[in-house]
Amino acid sequence: MKALGEAALTIVGTGLMGSSLALTLRGKVKSTCGVDPDPGHLEAAAAYFDAVTPHLEQAVAQSDVIILAAPIRAILQLLNRLSPILKPGTLVLDLGSTKRDIVQAMDKLPTRVLAVAGHPMCGKERSGPEAADKALYNGCVFVLCPTQRSTPEALEFAEGMIRAVGAHPLMMGAERHDAAVAAISHLPYLLSVGLVGAVKDTAEDDKLPWKLAAGGFRDTSRLAASDVTMMADILLTNREAVLDALRLFDAQLIALREALQSSDEQALRGILDGARQTRIDWARSRTEE
Amino acid sequence: MKALGEAALTIVGTGLMGSSLALTLRGKVKSTCGVDPDPGHLEAAAAYFDAVTPHLEQAVAQSDVIILAAPIRAILQLLNRLSPILKPGTLVLDLGSTKRDIVQAMDKLPTRVLAVAGHPMCGKERSGPEAADKALYNGCVFVLCPTQRSTPEALEFAEGMIRAVGAHPLMMGAERHDAAVAAISHLPYLLSVGLVGAVKDTAEDDKLPWKLAAGGFRDTSRLAASDVTMMADILLTNREAVLDALRLFDAQLIALREALQSSDEQALRGILDGARQTRIDWARSRTEE
Repeated sequence: MKALGEAALTIVGTGLMGSSLALTLRGKVKSTCGVDPDPGHLEAAAAYFDAVTPHLEQAVAQSDVIILAAPIRAILQLLNRLSPILKPGTLVLDLGSTKRDIVQAMDKLPTRVLAVAGHPMCGKERSGPEAADKALYNGCVFVLCPTQRSTPEALEFAEGMIRAVGAHPLMMGAERHDAAVAAISHLPYLLSVGLVGAVKDTAEDDKLPWKLAAGGFRDTSRLAASDVTMMADILLTNREAVLDALRLFDAQLIALREALQSSDEQALRGILDGARQTRIDWARSRTEE
Repeated sequence: MKALGEAALTIVGTGLMGSSLALTLRGKVKSTCGVDPDPGHLEAAAAYFDAVTPHLEQAVAQSDVIILAAPIRAILQLLNRLSPILKPGTLVLDLGSTKRDIVQAMDKLPTRVLAVAGHPMCGKERSGPEAADKALYNGCVFVLCPTQRSTPEALEFAEGMIRAVGAHPLMMGAERHDAAVAAISHLPYLLSVGLVGAVKDTAEDDKLPWKLAAGGFRDTSRLAASDVTMMADILLTNREAVLDALRLFDAQLIALREALQSSDEQALRGILDGARQTRIDWARSRTEE
């Protein structure tokens, strides 16, 4: 495995995540090549990469490391497509938001190649190269899931690259990752989508709710503006864990509704107090890190 | 009714809303007096008012306008307590977050006094005088609900005061207000509380979710840190409208869950696309205002 500074990187997908990564790795690697089938994306992303091209095969032939920065099912298709053409010793990484299916696909890559699955815990509701941000990865937790194609050297390279963009590598199994993100990322997205739908229904005959909506609605509904292709891939490849998280949420809502229906102030305050303290403790733990 | 610049104001409740209002009205009214039963609050708020006192009756005797900036059920108790002691022509305003019960109580005030119910659509998850903010009211919609004690002069005074703090007065009936805020404010709070509870349950045996929680969780759970006394009052005085909003939300979640359970990508994308477009349109309409 080459050192980070000697490695020629190809980043497949020049959206928010790929372009931000290229921007942040500039000068810390030998070269960056951006690959995207979308000419508009390629043009917008050109300034962040040493080179851009729509031709995957050509870029891959000249690269030591391939980073797949695309929606999950596009990553799965790319792994199929790359499998026969990867040079011996090439390292494949990815930035997909669910890890089980991707790790399974990486496990099946030819034994001549290396692969580590990854998920940086950062993002924005805006997408595309126009949203690229040099600080996007700074300070975030970057999950790494080992595969049957992960050697110690491959993991070391991935960790070094993560540290080079200011993020914190955290190694874990794919199933554990997927269950955790179902609760802290995919569930909030679904609540956000459901909230927007409920307000839309409330405002069907009287637009007043849209006029009164302020900071609370803004923050709670922010995720509903996320890219739909990305989110549909996430939900459909993490179905069981997301349904589990929804069940836990339902139990919370049932308890809240019962306390409210019976005007049981003590029960209501108990739930509200518990959530408040938990949220405050979490925020405090983040500040202390 | 005196002009704003000639009016002696008493603000009952020196928390976030009352202290921010005093701070913003300074120099635009004759005087501001802060009343609070909590000595710690009074001390922290002293810098924002011309005078502070724990004695409600004494402050009220010297004031032209009384502004009730307390949790809803405290406002209802204050209206009972003020009813026999208000001087003829005194104007009572309030900043309570639900309006039906408060308007009903104001309707019963003696005919010698004036009263207009109000709700500024602003706030923070932090509370107390320490969180006071001169810009809190700037640009926000400030709902006014007329009562049987509202004269044109009383409404005009309230509108003038609202404009003086940079907010936009919007007149409407209490029921219409309460239904709208159930959807855009009380529902997001309950979702936020339920989300925190669901993540807590997920993290019972493995703390990983708390470690991975990032921007999406942060924003969607922010409201769960709100003051519990304030929120319990809001929920219990707006029970029916909140339960209606929860029913509309449930219908959204059922549709999402069905699409997910059956891996019906088309149905799933339909819901996600609709919410995304609605959220983007709302954000755009805010920018254009």
